[in-house]
Amino acid sequence: MAGSAFGGVFRITTFGESHGVAVGVVAEGCPPLLPLAAEDIQRDLDRRRPGSSRQVTQRRESDKAEILSGVLEGKTTGAPVAILIRNADARPKDYEALRETFRPGHADITYFRKYGIRDWRGGGRASARETAARVAAGAIARAFLSTLGVCVRGCLEAMGDLEVPFRSWEDAAQNDFFAANRGAVVKKLSQKIESLRREGNSCGARVFAVAENVPAGWGEPVFDKLDADIAKAMMSINAVKGVEIGAGFAAVKMSGSENNDEITPDGFATNNAGGILGGISSGQNVTVRVAVKPASSIRIPQKSVTASGEETVVETKGRHDPCVGIRAVPVAEAMLALVLADHALRQRAQCGKFS
Amino acid sequence: MAGSAFGGVFRITTFGESHGVAVGVVAEGCPPLLPLAAEDIQRDLDRRRPGSSRQVTQRRESDKAEILSGVLEGKTTGAPVAILIRNADARPKDYEALRETFRPGHADITYFRKYGIRDWRGGGRASARETAARVAAGAIARAFLSTLGVCVRGCLEAMGDLEVPFRSWEDAAQNDFFAANRGAVVKKLSQKIESLRREGNSCGARVFAVAENVPAGWGEPVFDKLDADIAKAMMSINAVKGVEIGAGFAAVKMSGSENNDEITPDGFATNNAGGILGGISSGQNVTVRVAVKPASSIRIPQKSVTASGEETVVETKGRHDPCVGIRAVPVAEAMLALVLADHALRQRAQCGKFS
Amino acid sequence: MAGSAFGGVFRITTFGESHGVAVGVVAEGCPPLLPLAAEDIQRDLDRRRPGSSRQVTQRRESDKAEILSGVLEGKTTGAPVAILIRNADARPKDYEALRETFRPGHADITYFRKYGIRDWRGGGRASARETAARVAAGAIARAFLSTLGVCVRGCLEAMGDLEVPFRSWEDAAQNDFFAANRGAVVKKLSQKIESLRREGNSCGARVFAVAENVPAGWGEPVFDKLDADIAKAMMSINAVKGVEIGAGFAAVKMSGSENNDEITPDGFATNNAGGILGGISSGQNVTVRVAVKPASSIRIPQKSVTASGEETVVETKGRHDPCVGIRAVPVAEAMLALVLADHALRQRAQCGKFS
Amino acid sequence: MAGSAFGGVFRITTFGESHGVAVGVVAEGCPPLLPLAAEDIQRDLDRRRPGSSRQVTQRRESDKAEILSGVLEGKTTGAPVAILIRNADARPKDYEALRETFRPGHADITYFRKYGIRDWRGGGRASARETAARVAAGAIARAFLSTLGVCVRGCLEAMGDLEVPFRSWEDAAQNDFFAANRGAVVKKLSQKIESLRREGNSCGARVFAVAENVPAGWGEPVFDKLDADIAKAMMSINAVKGVEIGAGFAAVKMSGSENNDEITPDGFATNNAGGILGGISSGQNVTVRVAVKPASSIRIPQKSVTASGEETVVETKGRHDPCVGIRAVPVAEAMLALVLADHALRQRAQCGKFS
Repeated sequence: MAGSAFGGVFRITTFGESHGVAVGVVAEGCPPLLPLAAEDIQRDLDRRRPGSSRQVTQRRESDKAEILSGVLEGKTTGAPVAILIRNADARPKDYEALRETFRPGHADITYFRKYGIRDWRGGGRASARETAARVAAGAIARAFLSTLGVCVRGCLEAMGDLEVPFRSWEDAAQNDFFAANRGAVVKKLSQKIESLRREGNSCGARVFAVAENVPAGWGEPVFDKLDADIAKAMMSINAVKGVEIGAGFAAVKMSGSENNDEITPDGFATNNAGGILGGISSGQNVTVRVAVKPASSIRIPQKSVTASGEETVVETKGRHDPCVGIRAVPVAEAMLALVLADHALRQRAQCGKFS
Repeated sequence: MAGSAFGGVFRITTFGESHGVAVGVVAEGCPPLLPLAAEDIQRDLDRRRPGSSRQVTQRRESDKAEILSGVLEGKTTGAPVAILIRNADARPKDYEALRETFRPGHADITYFRKYGIRDWRGGGRASARETAARVAAGAIARAFLSTLGVCVRGCLEAMGDLEVPFRSWEDAAQNDFFAANRGAVVKKLSQKIESLRREGNSCGARVFAVAENVPAGWGEPVFDKLDADIAKAMMSINAVKGVEIGAGFAAVKMSGSENNDEITPDGFATNNAGGILGGISSGQNVTVRVAVKPASSIRIPQKSVTASGEETVVETKGRHDPCVGIRAVPVAEAMLALVLADHALRQRAQCGKFS
Repeated sequence: MAGSAFGGVFRITTFGESHGVAVGVVAEGCPPLLPLAAEDIQRDLDRRRPGSSRQVTQRRESDKAEILSGVLEGKTTGAPVAILIRNADARPKDYEALRETFRPGHADITYFRKYGIRDWRGGGRASARETAARVAAGAIARAFLSTLGVCVRGCLEAMGDLEVPFRSWEDAAQNDFFAANRGAVVKKLSQKIESLRREGNSCGARVFAVAENVPAGWGEPVFDKLDADIAKAMMSINAVKGVEIGAGFAAVKMSGSENNDEITPDGFATNNAGGILGGISSGQNVTVRVAVKPASSIRIPQKSVTASGEETVVETKGRHDPCVGIRAVPVAEAMLALVLADHALRQRAQCGKFS
Repeated sequence: MAGSAFGGVFRITTFGESHGVAVGVVAEGCPPLLPLAAEDIQRDLDRRRPGSSRQVTQRRESDKAEILSGVLEGKTTGAPVAILIRNADARPKDYEALRETFRPGHADITYFRKYGIRDWRGGGRASARETAARVAAGAIARAFLSTLGVCVRGCLEAMGDLEVPFRSWEDAAQNDFFAANRGAVVKKLSQKIESLRREGNSCGARVFAVAENVPAGWGEPVFDKLDADIAKAMMSINAVKGVEIGAGFAAVKMSGSENNDEITPDGFATNNAGGILGGISSGQNVTVRVAVKPASSIRIPQKSVTASGEETVVETKGRHDPCVGIRAVPVAEAMLALVLADHALRQRAQCGKFS
């Protein structure tokens, strides 16, 4: 069972390599009669796009989404919606040097060990470019969720050791870092990126995502719990190494009397649960935090081996992000939207209504 | 799509409620001709069993596993292996008071909102008792993995703010806390549990699990990455709120040059990746950390509401764990084993061999 | 991917061998709050039961269904419903002679070739006893479908070359053959069975099943079409070798103008389509015909080989049906009900309502 | 759960409408390092192509396959293989008249009832054009199967009441009817098609498909039996109304002693089982027969209703096949290949080898 599909009722299958012909996605199970236009998808793709700002990789991709199927006269028909994004700025030649060499921290070595062959052109399927297909599919999920009043948002909460205090969602929309704070921190983020670019190094990040207005009742115990599927969704994003729901690891040091969210007739008093109890949404905001490791492709020389097992030293050339965690924000939003859209339909399947 | 199944090729389906007739599991896809006896399953169940020590819930369950199918003359036949564990010490009456009341921090309220009905007898399906079925299935997975030389182990790394420095796996086998340290920390753990029991409170925990000797090549990008499926597996365990692979959240503050594990002809120099690159095992140890929240059932009174929405105050009676994180150790091991067994077979399906 | 599960949203997983401890089923995804009692399941099991008449195998099984989970105070809770049927009259010794020999026409040889091991005790998992679990699960599906007004029925349409003209469903309920005709044909059926029993031979059968009152809209093109899933469901029953929907093979010789069912404001004029167009129910009766081959276990000596490949002659002893097609009637009904229940929920998932 | 995916380990997802932008497929789980070129796919597509002969629809489609992903330097990489076939000769205008009218015998009415919207442009997703994607995917499956020595072939066995006696596979490759007989019957087939075209009518067909050299052991009891999955695969093809394995419906009238295939040290004496016992391949040829109903789109006027429920009369214009059963031959081959490729890998997953 190959792993390029995600979801149960609302289910996506992605394909495509970084420097191949195209990336794309087929989304099955979308409810019919949902208004959907290429622009809805383009809007989200543009937020994720490389080259959209100085902060991320300098690859220039138009990331133009073409809807191939499943939409008639502006509405979904219930048939699979296929979206194609051609690779315009593919430059496989740039990667010739990596044909026989494994970058430390990169999937080069494991793809080769697994399949006995590796698409060496820019990381192939392991490239962050693959996330464009996720974002395109996520845009469909969002369009559906918005009909239920559910809103998914994300922001950069930390870049390396630089914390970004939350100020407002409006702020997050006004800078290239998805920093929910339009204050001085934006300048510091810019400086940090510049500094990393000069050094040829990279840094990690912590991303926060939230879904607001999720009705109580979504999530399928005992394995397809809402938080379990969110954890999988997030951990499946390139470079993610940790996921927290609600209080997350902070709950380790809390007592039950502190951690339990008391309930009143007006709702929960706190939200340490991150909106999920027993794997089912409680009606509170669903909150997630994600740890993104520093990009592995750096210009600083590091020890490695060749495909034939000999010692070598790798300095990655090419156009790379000093902090992949920035672009992980729209990707995390997309994955959260995909999980929720799927669970909305699964709840309707068994229990007859969304809430 | 209800969520009581887990895995693709090696797939389990669990059933049963805490104070109903029984809990159990059907495991499909196990390779034939694997030696398997009820004792293999019993051994793991006994480690998880309530009443096995003073540290955990005082419910007395024999947790006797009966193999119903799929085994002939001590060997698996390739047919589904069903395991039944009857509830011997069920006392639904103890929970009558909770029939119309939702415990704060518990799944009582969300099950009711989701299904419109709730098995109020000791948490029903949301009870930690459900994990007995996981452990039983995990024992089959372990039996299979051991034929490949893969070993899965776990320990309690922290209980509340009390850290347990790792000393040895032998130590972990010699105390009821799964503490990999036979030193003074065991006494402190005991004292902490006693103190919580007196207060009627509970505390969180951090669990560490590792799989040794995993070959390179397991994991199915881009969604069923090995780490993604581990994250789901762990987050699906009762009370888990966070999952880390390798360096986890610490990677946020690292630079690429620090975080990248350099490669030498003798292997990787470090293991910040936790044995997984691009969602595929690298041949290093697969390392996971899990945050377990404090048990929600406490004797300290907390505000809540009744099923009809009226204010109330809840003090949970009954026999509960002050720290569910302790018993989460064998459960985390079982879930890790289940993910690995499944991915071993998936790797063999597509690529023809385990490594 | 082992194959003991069936269905998408309403999904069952069966286990158990003919002469092992038990057979059983876990049914996931059943809507909550559905009234369900052990008697509902027992009623259907009793129709299928061996020993219930002289017409079928003389094995005496009480086939007592025990509900292990998922039901509280007479209603489903949304959690998996597990049902256990212990094997009371298992006599593995009767099959010792078949330990090293493959019966012609039986799955003995293929199970052995596939798994390298074979549960020789009465056919193990390949025994018709396995269908008890299907019937038990089908009873849950029926209980759900009846809330939608959908009714599933079946009858024996032919036994060998003896055709049974349809007279009424009431008739079908009044004889052990499920013959929808209480006339002289019942006597002929009895005589044929007696004659086969004397000869030690067996015969084939054709079974008809129909679902009435199915709303338009069920079925998921282009692969999980309603007829495609019905075909799979039927062909998965022991000994089934052919499936027809509506006019079936007769459509080969029809012209389009004959075969097309004209549509009027009052509905379709004919039903050559068998209630399914483009894989989606049309609102007409869903009609299915199934070819059941003669049972392979016969007393007449036939050439075969041993496990080590040597020539031998097999005469099956034991208690066998001269016509397994009789008992296939309730099994075909159960499978049809399972497909419909699943597709009802899948339709609700994507499109929001059952019709 | 929408139904546009098929298979477990070797899994395809199709998309696209008849007169939309394109049709296509994503094939997951293909073993890596398999030689695969666009020409391999084109060869099969050309056999199915409309306009390739006078016998089938006069729509002119180049059916040019573009491989979008999963292949590097002529070899599969293990990543999803996506194939795109743009619709060159789409003429939605031709179908304006059908916007508000349902053709008798066609899926127009059921798609509308299911989704509340219908892609009226040439049948949309319900068009036989969808099968191009199946054939493209089938070509990958065939390429894989050929590495195992497995060969899949098909022929037209009957067109209406005109039977085509089998002569040789070479014959089947030398005429546009896939008739395995180069004799006078080909002329009769031509005359029949011409006659139907003149009348504006259509006829049914029976297709035969066989897989040679299938090892023993493929198929996953008890639901994903090889024959069950073949039945589903075949019944999911447009216009198919019946499926038989081996002796099929003829087995109804056989006795056990006739039907059982005796076994000798050199193999089975006969093949009434169609190469499958207990849902597992026996090592004999796997044989399948499929009933294809006459195409519903005919020029002869028939009664129908409009979307608003009013009486109308329909005479289909446009370019249609008098006998869709002809083109069903390569489609049936493709579906059989897809089932076998999937089960080959599933067998390897659980049991470690293909045979």
